[in-house]
Amino acid sequence: MGHSITEKILAAHSEQGDFKPGDIIDVTVDMLLMNDITGPVAVEVFDKMGDGEVFDKNKIAIVLDHFTPNKDVTSAKQCKTMRDFAAAKGIKHFYDAGYGIEHVVLPEDGIVKPGDLIIGGDSHTVTYGALGAFSTGMGSTDVAGIMALGKTWLKVPEQIKVLLVGLPNKWVSGKDVILYVISLLGTDGALGKSLEFDGPGAKHLNMDSRFSICNMAVECGAINGIFNFDDVTQEYIESLGLKDFCEYRSDSDAIYKKVIDVDLGELEPIVAMPHLPSRGVPVSEVKDIEIDQSFIGSCTNGRITDLRIASEIVKGKKIHPRVRGLIAPGSRKVFAQALKEGLIEIFTESGFTILPPGCGPCFGGHMGILAKGERCVSTTNRNFVGRMGDKGSEVYLANPAVAAASAIAGKLTHPSEVI
Amino acid sequence: MGHSITEKILAAHSEQGDFKPGDIIDVTVDMLLMNDITGPVAVEVFDKMGDGEVFDKNKIAIVLDHFTPNKDVTSAKQCKTMRDFAAAKGIKHFYDAGYGIEHVVLPEDGIVKPGDLIIGGDSHTVTYGALGAFSTGMGSTDVAGIMALGKTWLKVPEQIKVLLVGLPNKWVSGKDVILYVISLLGTDGALGKSLEFDGPGAKHLNMDSRFSICNMAVECGAINGIFNFDDVTQEYIESLGLKDFCEYRSDSDAIYKKVIDVDLGELEPIVAMPHLPSRGVPVSEVKDIEIDQSFIGSCTNGRITDLRIASEIVKGKKIHPRVRGLIAPGSRKVFAQALKEGLIEIFTESGFTILPPGCGPCFGGHMGILAKGERCVSTTNRNFVGRMGDKGSEVYLANPAVAAASAIAGKLTHPSEVI
Repeated sequence: MGHSITEKILAAHSEQGDFKPGDIIDVTVDMLLMNDITGPVAVEVFDKMGDGEVFDKNKIAIVLDHFTPNKDVTSAKQCKTMRDFAAAKGIKHFYDAGYGIEHVVLPEDGIVKPGDLIIGGDSHTVTYGALGAFSTGMGSTDVAGIMALGKTWLKVPEQIKVLLVGLPNKWVSGKDVILYVISLLGTDGALGKSLEFDGPGAKHLNMDSRFSICNMAVECGAINGIFNFDDVTQEYIESLGLKDFCEYRSDSDAIYKKVIDVDLGELEPIVAMPHLPSRGVPVSEVKDIEIDQSFIGSCTNGRITDLRIASEIVKGKKIHPRVRGLIAPGSRKVFAQALKEGLIEIFTESGFTILPPGCGPCFGGHMGILAKGERCVSTTNRNFVGRMGDKGSEVYLANPAVAAASAIAGKLTHPSEVI
Repeated sequence: MGHSITEKILAAHSEQGDFKPGDIIDVTVDMLLMNDITGPVAVEVFDKMGDGEVFDKNKIAIVLDHFTPNKDVTSAKQCKTMRDFAAAKGIKHFYDAGYGIEHVVLPEDGIVKPGDLIIGGDSHTVTYGALGAFSTGMGSTDVAGIMALGKTWLKVPEQIKVLLVGLPNKWVSGKDVILYVISLLGTDGALGKSLEFDGPGAKHLNMDSRFSICNMAVECGAINGIFNFDDVTQEYIESLGLKDFCEYRSDSDAIYKKVIDVDLGELEPIVAMPHLPSRGVPVSEVKDIEIDQSFIGSCTNGRITDLRIASEIVKGKKIHPRVRGLIAPGSRKVFAQALKEGLIEIFTESGFTILPPGCGPCFGGHMGILAKGERCVSTTNRNFVGRMGDKGSEVYLANPAVAAASAIAGKLTHPSEVI
């Protein structure tokens, strides 16, 4: 009987030889991640444990990205807690405010690698599955335990395979693939399971699209979303000059609980209507929904290819006078690259406001919060009630092309209508 | 008996013919300004008055700059109140979040002009005195009254003249002039008075330096800070293509309560120590004060020449690893110009984080709030206890060159030490 990539990575990180879905196993952790929200709680718990030594100062990453640059005195204190902790313990991978979003920074700096087992104090830690890594989020107490021991336990997940075929149309990206899959599965359709993306269509999805897809695997309950190591992964890894990683691929006779077929050629850009990520519908079916804000950014869609496609749409056009356009590059490197390519200039001339690298308004933290009755088209990952502000506001999830086109039109719009 | 520029502007806006310092006069208002903090209060009061008609929809400016892009649901609601009000009343000069700081945007868009009488619901409305205008801040109730009537009352101020002579050294700017004057006068030394800047040295101060100077006139209690219309004003006005303005200059025999002599050639960059703007000392006398943050921006120093001089210092250097460097261009136009000149790239390569155009952390609102024990060198105008965060934090006011040099050195530093 063959094994999936998820099972192979878990096996490589566990002393328990043979296991099956549902089994509880101990695993070693290659990289542990904390941010300015979940980190302080983890540090507080950690400080009550053992001898105060972290398991490996080279295997912990701290990224201050959620309420930064510091929103208020509380967030300033939380950031200081993490900064002081990083200094005291000699944490190697410490990113202060302004470097960017954890899930954008860690891959681009080669801190998370194919074949790794990565745990983060953030639900969107699933993002790194794009690299062919096992990667999942845990609560702060678990994170504290890992900080001390370098180990944790997991329930071996059942597998769902998403079999990708076909060639995506222009304006369709990874975001649409995952919004479509979530619309099929529902928000708990993959609860506790592994969501593997495979098939001949995968090669048409670049690494940024894969990050978007794996990032949102958690929105249908999956504990990880994952791609097999392939030529796209290889090319990305080479561009970073990465060494010391492991290539894993699922065996052809691995066991899946379910297989979902997705023809990329049949997809069109999708909008997830309020207030669930699973309420995805083709944007062409959404009529006359006026918007007040368009946000392009986040760990889902704040990467360079996201900004490139958005800039392609807005270049030479002005955003609708009613719309506040906000762009938060996912990292300082993304911002620098966008600067170099002239994208920041294009966005600014169109009337967009450029936010500092970080999470921006995604989780309702700051820098673009919605008032009652306001609507935002957003490239982020969640559109729950009040996610980005007042409980009477609405968030429509979409890809960056749709968010850009909608900013121009002033209402939810298919990119082809404004180009 | 001659008259000062301040008296001439007041006379031109009042039906009362002859008046003297201390008299109460009625004046007409050329431009009324509101923002997202003081505006909603003014609107609430206004809505309880008269027929709901504003005195002149072309003479009101609304700029959403303090808690924008919206910090939280409260600020989102405040902004929406102002947005809806502007739309309902047809307010001509409405600037939504991301356009920049009121006191940077209004001059650069030619909305405030030489000879105007300008009232704003913000204490730093004094800024426009740089243009040779009478300009002062008032409370929201007064603003509401002006919104209805287009008129208000003023107590005619006594005059203090700051007589500028000499040529300023490199790294000395308007910020140092005003910090020096405030250190002489104390925070209430010009209470209720007019602070006029004149003399042969004035021609060496460009318009951005003059904006800095007049901006902080309120920090020694002055109701206005003002420069006479001269060649520097003329050149600025021409660069904007402005018409329909009035040139005023003080008569040589105007009466001043006091004259303060300032030799610009004797000045060096000044730092105002915590916790008063009046605690200015030459930066060379400040030793070994390590900083955690450097902020360059605000209505005092967020203009293009401020960014140019800061970029000159940081170009090719990295900011100190302990320091968070923050730059908030004063307006979208300043940002666009800085982009064009390559300044944003220089700052980014040095490790600065670029904030969206707006007030940033200046008033302790968001985007760079300090934790207990943290120190910030800041180009802003106030360093009161807790101004930028925790009551146990400290703010050191300085010019952009000092803030940039200190970011590189990690401690308060004279620009010549890092260049």
